[in-house]
Amino acid sequence: MKSFKRYFPILDWGQHYTRDTLTNDLVAAVIVTIMLIPQSLAYALLAGLPAEMGLYASILPLVAYAVFGTSRALAVGPVAVVSLMTAAAVGNLALQGTAEYAAAAIVLAFLSGVILLVLGVFRLGFLANFLSHPVIAGFITASGIIIATSQLKHILGINAGGHNLLELIHSLFAHLGDISIWTTLIGITSTGFLFWVRKGLKPLLLSKGIKPRMADILTKAGPVAAVVVTTLVTWVFGLHNHGVAIVGEVPRGLPPLTIPDFNVDIWTSLFGSAVLISIIGFVESVSVAQTLAAKRRQRIIPDQELIGLGASNIAASISGGYPVTGGFARSVVNFDAGAETPAAGAFTAVGILLAALALTPLLYFLPKATLAATIIVAVLSLVDFSMLRTTWNYSKADFTAVAATILLTLGFGVEIGVSAGVGLSIFLYLYRTSRPHIAEVGLVPGTEHFRNINRHRVETRPDILTIRVDENLYFANARYLEDYLYDRVVGDRGLKHVILMCSAVNNIDTSALESLEAINQRFEDMGITLNLSEVKGPVMDRLSRTHFLHHLSGKVYLTQFEAVKELSH
Amino acid sequence: MKSFKRYFPILDWGQHYTRDTLTNDLVAAVIVTIMLIPQSLAYALLAGLPAEMGLYASILPLVAYAVFGTSRALAVGPVAVVSLMTAAAVGNLALQGTAEYAAAAIVLAFLSGVILLVLGVFRLGFLANFLSHPVIAGFITASGIIIATSQLKHILGINAGGHNLLELIHSLFAHLGDISIWTTLIGITSTGFLFWVRKGLKPLLLSKGIKPRMADILTKAGPVAAVVVTTLVTWVFGLHNHGVAIVGEVPRGLPPLTIPDFNVDIWTSLFGSAVLISIIGFVESVSVAQTLAAKRRQRIIPDQELIGLGASNIAASISGGYPVTGGFARSVVNFDAGAETPAAGAFTAVGILLAALALTPLLYFLPKATLAATIIVAVLSLVDFSMLRTTWNYSKADFTAVAATILLTLGFGVEIGVSAGVGLSIFLYLYRTSRPHIAEVGLVPGTEHFRNINRHRVETRPDILTIRVDENLYFANARYLEDYLYDRVVGDRGLKHVILMCSAVNNIDTSALESLEAINQRFEDMGITLNLSEVKGPVMDRLSRTHFLHHLSGKVYLTQFEAVKELSH
Repeated sequence: MKSFKRYFPILDWGQHYTRDTLTNDLVAAVIVTIMLIPQSLAYALLAGLPAEMGLYASILPLVAYAVFGTSRALAVGPVAVVSLMTAAAVGNLALQGTAEYAAAAIVLAFLSGVILLVLGVFRLGFLANFLSHPVIAGFITASGIIIATSQLKHILGINAGGHNLLELIHSLFAHLGDISIWTTLIGITSTGFLFWVRKGLKPLLLSKGIKPRMADILTKAGPVAAVVVTTLVTWVFGLHNHGVAIVGEVPRGLPPLTIPDFNVDIWTSLFGSAVLISIIGFVESVSVAQTLAAKRRQRIIPDQELIGLGASNIAASISGGYPVTGGFARSVVNFDAGAETPAAGAFTAVGILLAALALTPLLYFLPKATLAATIIVAVLSLVDFSMLRTTWNYSKADFTAVAATILLTLGFGVEIGVSAGVGLSIFLYLYRTSRPHIAEVGLVPGTEHFRNINRHRVETRPDILTIRVDENLYFANARYLEDYLYDRVVGDRGLKHVILMCSAVNNIDTSALESLEAINQRFEDMGITLNLSEVKGPVMDRLSRTHFLHHLSGKVYLTQFEAVKELSH
Repeated sequence: MKSFKRYFPILDWGQHYTRDTLTNDLVAAVIVTIMLIPQSLAYALLAGLPAEMGLYASILPLVAYAVFGTSRALAVGPVAVVSLMTAAAVGNLALQGTAEYAAAAIVLAFLSGVILLVLGVFRLGFLANFLSHPVIAGFITASGIIIATSQLKHILGINAGGHNLLELIHSLFAHLGDISIWTTLIGITSTGFLFWVRKGLKPLLLSKGIKPRMADILTKAGPVAAVVVTTLVTWVFGLHNHGVAIVGEVPRGLPPLTIPDFNVDIWTSLFGSAVLISIIGFVESVSVAQTLAAKRRQRIIPDQELIGLGASNIAASISGGYPVTGGFARSVVNFDAGAETPAAGAFTAVGILLAALALTPLLYFLPKATLAATIIVAVLSLVDFSMLRTTWNYSKADFTAVAATILLTLGFGVEIGVSAGVGLSIFLYLYRTSRPHIAEVGLVPGTEHFRNINRHRVETRPDILTIRVDENLYFANARYLEDYLYDRVVGDRGLKHVILMCSAVNNIDTSALESLEAINQRFEDMGITLNLSEVKGPVMDRLSRTHFLHHLSGKVYLTQFEAVKELSH
């Protein structure tokens, strides 16, 4: 029963569901629905998919997350970065606008869902940890720039394309002669309006005496206002006959039942992309969920989140949607609006369903430029170069990882950018640990403390050398330690004892053990004893299962002070 | 001048060259030459190359190493594992026995040489450290098995092939009907004789009163004896007319001047193999060189060794040879025979050159079965499964890496085997550090020491929680720490202060710093302060360059004892 409940968190919060909770969840759902309708349409456009797929991706997936998810506030659905990644993945297989393109997006959602479920069931969520914060920050920033640039074509009313920044800019300039005046007018006005709503509207409303909560809701309704006004203008003035691209016919009705296409070639070529989308979606989603949960002293279960998001993506794939995950802005709105349980998500789904049933005919004259404006305004808040400055000050290795991720994402697209970022950050970590900080230490006079001879005034003896390695000893640095010790010892004729102070060594692997054996042997050939001090419990437990301690020419001392005292006799 | 000397170690040892040194080097050279002639021929056979290429690979490369190498005892030339890897790499491009096959082997030597030189000049030798000892041990063992199995066809006189164990065994059984009786007789007799020489001859000679050094030399001459006897037998009885495969015509004279074929396709397809051969050759060579150097309290410079081996391989590629490296058995013989400087290698080269000039006609009737026997006896000493037992007892992660390397090498060949082994050992290390040992600690009564509450009887307070993380804090475990702390704290209503004891933390990267900031923020939301204790100097230096310490809800304490004392008030 307990493990059954693990997989169905709804059984937990569902038991305590009250009338008050219902009211709060309903209010939150209304606000999120208003925000989500234009976003769903816009992100589908970004993914190169028909507008209705954005709506479909905002119905059943939300219900699935409400059943399986553990976050009380996470709002699931299409998001900008995953939409961009979908376009990049599917764009390799089919042309935008074709049935194959949409079918591939559905397969991608299905594969992502299965990958997330498998990771969740086998509790492999830790794999996402190999995506370091700097790499994520760099990736999101670069993606934001690419997304904003990719939408300029809709603002200007021209045809342009490309999956990286250079291609996009080049293509924009090549088609600059085809600019549509009316489209550009709508696009720039909408963008300006939405920026003003974001920055200037709320203070204005507050100064007019409107209550903060109401001001918030009105601000979130900005995109809806832009959609309504530009649609009306286009319809009244017949601008679609003057070069303004519109959304056009959007099928009305329930989401269709879709079955992901079981084609081995498509599956194989989408698999890598699905892994990246799953992991990036998961990382984004979990960090939002965790931030919001902590504010109410609640907790989320990351492995169960994988199952929740997996179920959402599978739900998307069987109801005509495309890959979804938890959205940052949307979840914060949901939380601020008072959502108390995942039921708020299910109520949002009902809201979007009603829109799909009733409102789609009204979207016919909606200009694509308006949707592009909502995307640009939304993603520019993702662009944040502060990580470059932070890491430059704090860690050059992390700076290298951010800078490389940003440049490679901009230059070669999202998939290469993020993969290279992950590879590079792992390599840089291993590189760091492969050349650990090694200090020669001596006794601080009058104490039992041993400190770095280069940083402190300490006492040493010519016949005893104490080395403190500030890192686990493992294969990547075993030879470095060997080289360091031989170099240090080889010309030092007065030396009789070497002590390895192991206070910072949490692990010694087989390679390092063999290196220690070799060092011991070679020191013995030179007439020098090898001693260890301050070896940690778990490390000592393992060493005592080997022959190393028998062969050791010196001894293992509990403390460094004891070692020097005894060897000084 | 100093950096010039760095690249030419010969300038160093050459200054002190005396008559005594010369005598010792000459004696060693004679013994190594006797050992090297049959080995060179045999390993060329193993690599699928004409016998003379083995001789050529034992001339100029030795001279190049004498100029650039830093080891006083390393004997360079064709070795078993690298020959097998050459066969695997070149076999993908051309058929054995063709001119293209030999040309590709020459390109492979050139590429390996360039890679080694580049690694040496840019001091990238540390890259070899990512090959852990268990992976090397597993790889060498599996290679030994594959090599021995691959030679059975020569012992039995049948045609068989394959690059992994299953293919080899399958092919052997398929051709079992074609066994040549005379070949098998020569092969089995030679193998038996060589095993006896290795195990039984030396004790016998010693018991007959022969001096140990002489007994050693006679033992090393065993393969030469086998070559001479079986060649004579084959010639006298005309066994080559009865199905015994012989070496045949070997061109007589100086090594040819060869220019590596500059073909982009060949270079591209050999590049990966050249990287593997370079790194494995380097690792093998350096560990032998280091062991021997330590015995005489000398030192080798790993980055200069890369240059030495690089020069050797380029020398091989311009003189009709194939990839070479330092051989284990050969170097030990060289060392034991008294070689004092790399000049011994140059003298060995002269010996092999004389053989190439004068002896090749005598090799006409040499049975391939005899060469196969010398290979089998040599490589079976490489096969050593003890690493499986050692790692099983000591570290399950290392055991997994050895076992996977052995199985994958046997099952899929050398290149996949060693690559998978490296990948797996890096992954397992990262996995380990991604779920670090985290202990909750308390005060040992009557002391200022804090120990694990699960291992010791310690004092704790309900309002203070102290957590000690035994690992660097970095991206792979940042989220784990967050999850651990939230889980631990969320239900603990009496908690007021959390102390993170950082005595085992050698590094905090940007991801971990952001996690600490998030933890601090969320704890603040819960009314809990976050404190640090025993932060190391270098870590503190970097933290103080950030805003983290300003935002920290608690304080940073020099010692854990001080932290608890102050927070208890």
